[in-house]
Amino acid sequence: MTMRAVDIIAKKRDGQALSAEEIDFFIQGYARDEIPDYQAAAWCMAVLLRGMTHEETTALTLSMARSGKQLDLSDVAPLVADKHSTGGVGDKVTMALGPVVAAAGQPVGKMSGRGLGFSGGTLDKLESIPGWSAERSEQEFKQQIREIGLVVAGQTRELVPADRKLYALRDVTATVPSLPLIASSVMSKKIAAGANVILLDVKVGVGAFMETLEDAVELAETMVAIGRLAGRRVAARVTDMNQPLGRAVGNALEVKEALATLRGEGPPDFTELILTEAAHLLMMCERADDEQSARRAVEETLSSGTALEKFRAFVAAQGGDPAVVDEPDRLLPQAPVQQDLLSPRAGYLSAVNARVFGMTTVHLGGGRLRKGDPIDRSVGVVLHAKIGDYVEKGQPLCTIHARNEADAAQAAEELLAAYDWSEQPVSPPALIKRTIQPDDIP
Amino acid sequence: MTMRAVDIIAKKRDGQALSAEEIDFFIQGYARDEIPDYQAAAWCMAVLLRGMTHEETTALTLSMARSGKQLDLSDVAPLVADKHSTGGVGDKVTMALGPVVAAAGQPVGKMSGRGLGFSGGTLDKLESIPGWSAERSEQEFKQQIREIGLVVAGQTRELVPADRKLYALRDVTATVPSLPLIASSVMSKKIAAGANVILLDVKVGVGAFMETLEDAVELAETMVAIGRLAGRRVAARVTDMNQPLGRAVGNALEVKEALATLRGEGPPDFTELILTEAAHLLMMCERADDEQSARRAVEETLSSGTALEKFRAFVAAQGGDPAVVDEPDRLLPQAPVQQDLLSPRAGYLSAVNARVFGMTTVHLGGGRLRKGDPIDRSVGVVLHAKIGDYVEKGQPLCTIHARNEADAAQAAEELLAAYDWSEQPVSPPALIKRTIQPDDIP
Repeated sequence: MTMRAVDIIAKKRDGQALSAEEIDFFIQGYARDEIPDYQAAAWCMAVLLRGMTHEETTALTLSMARSGKQLDLSDVAPLVADKHSTGGVGDKVTMALGPVVAAAGQPVGKMSGRGLGFSGGTLDKLESIPGWSAERSEQEFKQQIREIGLVVAGQTRELVPADRKLYALRDVTATVPSLPLIASSVMSKKIAAGANVILLDVKVGVGAFMETLEDAVELAETMVAIGRLAGRRVAARVTDMNQPLGRAVGNALEVKEALATLRGEGPPDFTELILTEAAHLLMMCERADDEQSARRAVEETLSSGTALEKFRAFVAAQGGDPAVVDEPDRLLPQAPVQQDLLSPRAGYLSAVNARVFGMTTVHLGGGRLRKGDPIDRSVGVVLHAKIGDYVEKGQPLCTIHARNEADAAQAAEELLAAYDWSEQPVSPPALIKRTIQPDDIP
Repeated sequence: MTMRAVDIIAKKRDGQALSAEEIDFFIQGYARDEIPDYQAAAWCMAVLLRGMTHEETTALTLSMARSGKQLDLSDVAPLVADKHSTGGVGDKVTMALGPVVAAAGQPVGKMSGRGLGFSGGTLDKLESIPGWSAERSEQEFKQQIREIGLVVAGQTRELVPADRKLYALRDVTATVPSLPLIASSVMSKKIAAGANVILLDVKVGVGAFMETLEDAVELAETMVAIGRLAGRRVAARVTDMNQPLGRAVGNALEVKEALATLRGEGPPDFTELILTEAAHLLMMCERADDEQSARRAVEETLSSGTALEKFRAFVAAQGGDPAVVDEPDRLLPQAPVQQDLLSPRAGYLSAVNARVFGMTTVHLGGGRLRKGDPIDRSVGVVLHAKIGDYVEKGQPLCTIHARNEADAAQAAEELLAAYDWSEQPVSPPALIKRTIQPDDIP
């Protein structure tokens, strides 16, 4: 009995679990253009509404990874670490975490993405650095891990073609927000890119794709389960994305903040997140015997300056001007207009809506609504107060970096709606909401 | 704000009711090839899994009807009746009911379909009559209603193009079994074909598309609700399709049984169904003051021979040989091999599985698995015993009409599995399970 796509769709439509063979038949057939878009669209909607078991999602992930080239990094290092964020506003973690972990002796090889909608992308941010390029051949990718211990590259077209095709289809068929489809999309790329130790950062809140803790935890658990079933070391953190991470939002502004953090001068909450996640990755890679020594090792990379030097070497290796580390203000693009937004009232800040900051940055020209839109890397916003802070009436809430006065005025109006004030003291939200290890998954 | 297909899909995906404008935007866009198959496929799956309100299904029906030409029969007769069956095995109701109702003075104008899978089609059956053609232009269709009061034609390509396109897509995307999509497909064709009084026969059982009474009642209620909201007089019967209807299964064999019924010599259960449904249609068309006089009027068409004469005129009008009425055995195709299937045991028949009879007829060459397959109109099966009848061991259960001995032997083997016997007396199943009038719908 030969398999038929329509029967596989019907089985999922009726809420049954698909076998690994059925999933592979469907995914490879779709990747090879043997199964048409309309059958894949019906299948995606059935998956979205009926769900998948962890076993199905793992089979889907591995099948997508198999649809193209898969990097084998075992000849480069026994363990290569990767870190992935599900996307948020002001998320410059990769730029700070990578150098810290690499400086602590653990190689990091990461393929990263671009920003879309309210959510920024690491490649867009790093391209603020004059000369820096995300294009790395497989050989360059491996060589840079070997020589510098840190590489951040764009995904090559040979990797996971099934995901690229499926993602474009999901975008126009309202099938993006499906946990198994999101989890398999992320994990197939991670697995194909060759890293064997992966720390996932699942953002939750108004500035993330997952808006509820329940959804975020389920996504995190699904991805950790996939990793376990696929034989990778994977852990996940669910972290807050109700307000922007750190203080800078916008490409060049975020590079500047990452550099400040590597100098030990970053915002305390962001610095703490970097140190915690870096220590966690070292533990996962068995580079430290216990949490305390892992923590000491990563703190040491900041105080000794080795993390900053790792960033410098990384930039140089990918064609960027290493002097950016010393003179970011001179070498990174700067917006001509900088205008403060003043608080219209006194009170404790109770909301600093991350999504508004993300969309305002898009409107300022610093992000894109459609893939391929050009962006201005100089623009964005720098926050001076976050949730829990007390502000006086007339005190600057943030500084808008814009191309002209009109843009800045428009941004100020939008951003005002991001804020809320309380008469009573407000506790700042915990940054790390949940940590999920493989043993936590039933 | 312009509408976007992806937003309409997302709204249905999230279980919200679509507005008539949104449904019309989607359906007309799809009919005009502006909305691609993959978006329609995702939307169909969302509709299947999330459902639709009666208002949405009505909007969908009317939008599909509007996608092409709509016949206006008001210049032909104040009321034109139609009858539609959802499809079953041995269902020759149209061929007997049409002449009875027309002979009682009520014009009947019907567009009918072809058989597929286990389910037969009226056009295939009537084409057993030498010369008879289902092709009628709009002018011929109207003229025949005016002059004879009875026409049965194939659906023209100008009618409901959206349904034709959507049905082909549903077939390959596992989205056929959706009540709102089935109901709107049926009703859009009925409405576009111009009849204003419609009696629906929803088949339920192993030989029908609806296998549970619950599903059949829901479909019937949905279609009656659409009719009410669309300003048509619509009622529905849910009737048994666990065993074949009447005694003949197969195209020419069913024409012969319909003719026998019009002569007053048909199987009692089938004759009773025809008289009940015909009387019901006369009442709906206000051709009778009460049920008793309606019943008398339709019985009169059989006893007086006017129904048989109406069939003769109808056949002649559509190019068929009217002598078929007098000499069916000579003029209808006959299978060369006729072989009895003998009962292997004695007992009360407790199952005569209609679907097995339908599929066996396909295997004998009398039906099709794919659209456009050629068929042999002579083959089929004639039943001699039905559920509740007592049979002796060795008594003929049915006669197989086949092209050769090998086909007959294969059919005998298949049909044996359709039967079950009981030691205890078995009550024959009620033919009419439920009648649904517009006032019954909440």
